[in-house]
Amino acid sequence: METNNGTMKHGVDTNSTITIKGILSLLMQNTDDRDGKRVLSLGMGDPSAYSCFHTTHVAPEAVIDALQSDKFNGYAPTSGLPQTRRAVAEYLSRDLPYKLSSEDIFITCGCTQAIDVAMAMLARPGANILLPRPGFPIYELSAGFRHLEVRYFDLLPEKGWEVDLDAVEALADKNTVAVVVINPGNPCGNVYSYQHLKKIAETANKLRTLVIADEVYGHLAFGSKPFVPMGVFGSIVPVLTLGSLSKRWIVPGWRLGWFVTSDPCGMFRKPKVLSLSLLYIFYISWSLVFIMISSSQVVERIKKYFDLLGGPATFIQAAVPRIIEQTDELFFQQTINILKNSSDICYEWIKEIPCISCPYKPEGSMAVMVKLNVSFLDDISDDIDFCFKLAKEESVIILPGTAVGLKDWLRITFAADEYSLEEALGRVKSFCERHAKQLEVY
Amino acid sequence: METNNGTMKHGVDTNSTITIKGILSLLMQNTDDRDGKRVLSLGMGDPSAYSCFHTTHVAPEAVIDALQSDKFNGYAPTSGLPQTRRAVAEYLSRDLPYKLSSEDIFITCGCTQAIDVAMAMLARPGANILLPRPGFPIYELSAGFRHLEVRYFDLLPEKGWEVDLDAVEALADKNTVAVVVINPGNPCGNVYSYQHLKKIAETANKLRTLVIADEVYGHLAFGSKPFVPMGVFGSIVPVLTLGSLSKRWIVPGWRLGWFVTSDPCGMFRKPKVLSLSLLYIFYISWSLVFIMISSSQVVERIKKYFDLLGGPATFIQAAVPRIIEQTDELFFQQTINILKNSSDICYEWIKEIPCISCPYKPEGSMAVMVKLNVSFLDDISDDIDFCFKLAKEESVIILPGTAVGLKDWLRITFAADEYSLEEALGRVKSFCERHAKQLEVY
Repeated sequence: METNNGTMKHGVDTNSTITIKGILSLLMQNTDDRDGKRVLSLGMGDPSAYSCFHTTHVAPEAVIDALQSDKFNGYAPTSGLPQTRRAVAEYLSRDLPYKLSSEDIFITCGCTQAIDVAMAMLARPGANILLPRPGFPIYELSAGFRHLEVRYFDLLPEKGWEVDLDAVEALADKNTVAVVVINPGNPCGNVYSYQHLKKIAETANKLRTLVIADEVYGHLAFGSKPFVPMGVFGSIVPVLTLGSLSKRWIVPGWRLGWFVTSDPCGMFRKPKVLSLSLLYIFYISWSLVFIMISSSQVVERIKKYFDLLGGPATFIQAAVPRIIEQTDELFFQQTINILKNSSDICYEWIKEIPCISCPYKPEGSMAVMVKLNVSFLDDISDDIDFCFKLAKEESVIILPGTAVGLKDWLRITFAADEYSLEEALGRVKSFCERHAKQLEVY
Repeated sequence: METNNGTMKHGVDTNSTITIKGILSLLMQNTDDRDGKRVLSLGMGDPSAYSCFHTTHVAPEAVIDALQSDKFNGYAPTSGLPQTRRAVAEYLSRDLPYKLSSEDIFITCGCTQAIDVAMAMLARPGANILLPRPGFPIYELSAGFRHLEVRYFDLLPEKGWEVDLDAVEALADKNTVAVVVINPGNPCGNVYSYQHLKKIAETANKLRTLVIADEVYGHLAFGSKPFVPMGVFGSIVPVLTLGSLSKRWIVPGWRLGWFVTSDPCGMFRKPKVLSLSLLYIFYISWSLVFIMISSSQVVERIKKYFDLLGGPATFIQAAVPRIIEQTDELFFQQTINILKNSSDICYEWIKEIPCISCPYKPEGSMAVMVKLNVSFLDDISDDIDFCFKLAKEESVIILPGTAVGLKDWLRITFAADEYSLEEALGRVKSFCERHAKQLEVY
């Protein structure tokens, strides 16, 4: 399996779409249990793996009550239970200058399915989508299956991982259907300011393309900047907001997400009632994004698409209104406090490790990108080699940056308990020191 | 909204793909609550809607225990939890002449998602798929979104709704990727014999095309013929088996299904290790079905595709081994007894109603197709008109045959309690008598 022909290394095929789960699984297989070291993973964005992260008691209680009521064993409407859609609409509207309606909300199997719905809805021959680099590889994988061309714009580490808007403008053409923005950022741990998000919206408006706002880490901001949903700028540009209970409620395995048309001007609904002349103006400006309206309204098409999908379990959906209503603010604050503390520990440790550096202190989400300086190391060829040898020698799992689009970077997840984090980063330090070029270590 | 230009009638656009849920929802809106009649639905294949159908106590207990264990709030592997895949493999292997392995099983959000996975995996430019008529409209809808051409072969009412194999042979060409077989049958209530299933397998083998076996109603057979899984003939033709807990365990809202490669010869796995000459032979015989192997193994492609999907909740998956292991045979037998009784009541009532006739007494699943003779009726133009007027006047919901591909037929779901069934069919009888042409009623 393992060859070294430049495309396969440690079993990782860098010519093909890499999935985070795929590469983490290979790394896990590469650990060596003979040395008795506990395997420590800073690889996956699944906080439920560490006991310091725990959902609020309200959440399982509400699910059990819904299940025991015996009223929710049957099919839900494919777009979601009405009460669930209403609850999510109210929840998201708290942070918006307008009110979302239930009709704007479609309940999905986690944010993953919401991503795939967005890709499938926007795909058509010749279309392209602009993705951030570094980013989240499910977008590219999904776009590939939906025959949607992907083009990458850089996030700028020296500017707090802001979007390179010049690059976005240079990449976009009349076939560009959307720009993807992940905020709070995975894999970078950044949180975008109100001003930067507004600029993104204005750029997208100028380019006549939608924004897909991946807010699966919504509200997980612990730095100076508050979390601002992209939907705030929905009157500048139509936004598809993707989110879920997964991260904020620490229940990623419950698969309860949402796909939302954050669109106060009703661009997704209007076409069918527009007069012909208006339709013409509409067409020449937003023509290619909305080309699918020629046969039906965008929202009608989305509804039909949901008929194909198995949504989340009806009884979990039924629990959502109570979960949203009864979750204490204190619970959210505790998660934020733990994440802030963990990210601080992580950041301080990184400073102590000679061959890696962090250009930007994380302010949100659960991960941070660090630059790997392979020239400091003796026998490590790149980030993939680093991570496989680290797994082998130290039983520590870290994601190579190549998996998120940046070679010779690493993504470190800090959603771990303090003890595990210190232990894991201590082992990374030993590993780096052991592999350091002797003359160049300061 | 309502026009009568031949394509729109009662708000039903017969030129577009009709979904069962869509048309039932329109019918429901058409009921008239002013007359105080309780709405009775014989429209949906959701047994949990009637209290006589109830899941076994083991099922919610196992789910609650899994949830309360606090071990299953995190992500599951995208193909499913290993113990869930193993349990489903063992469950399905009980009825096969070979053993399925965990690797053959992919856990899905109900059978609906399994259907869509099959369509997405088989779609490629120019490909076509053969679907039964009458059938289940999600296949056509999914094929449309995946750009897969659909061709229909008839099921023959006079032969117990058997597949018209001559039609299958006439329709198939080198671009045909699969033949879909739904057994026990939805919407017809038929159960195929061992011999007929074998003939289907042999025909598919001759045509060098796969069989997709939709067995969502698996084991729900209460006539003379036992349920035989298509996978029994997996050595004649590679089979993709689709199924779920939904119907047999009466929990359709739990969204727990499976997509299975029932393929004892390993056709889905072999390609990559075949020698070039074997590959050539393989190509010329099964070339177009397996064209995707040029870049990767079929199973590898399926695995990657699952990375895009939000699967069912991890804690529900975790409950499956116990649900399968501890469900009493008596529970299954009770469901079968109720269905047999309901189908008998339904069949006897149909005989009493002059304008409809049933060519074949149902022996499985939860529905039956009946022929509507509009020439007996005074002011009913077709099946859609019949169902909308029935909903309006009698608050009874029945699915027009057009929704499953047969104009001027009706699909009646008999998964209802005895009292509701008698009441609903009594109202259908009154309705038919009221609308009968005076001279032609015998």
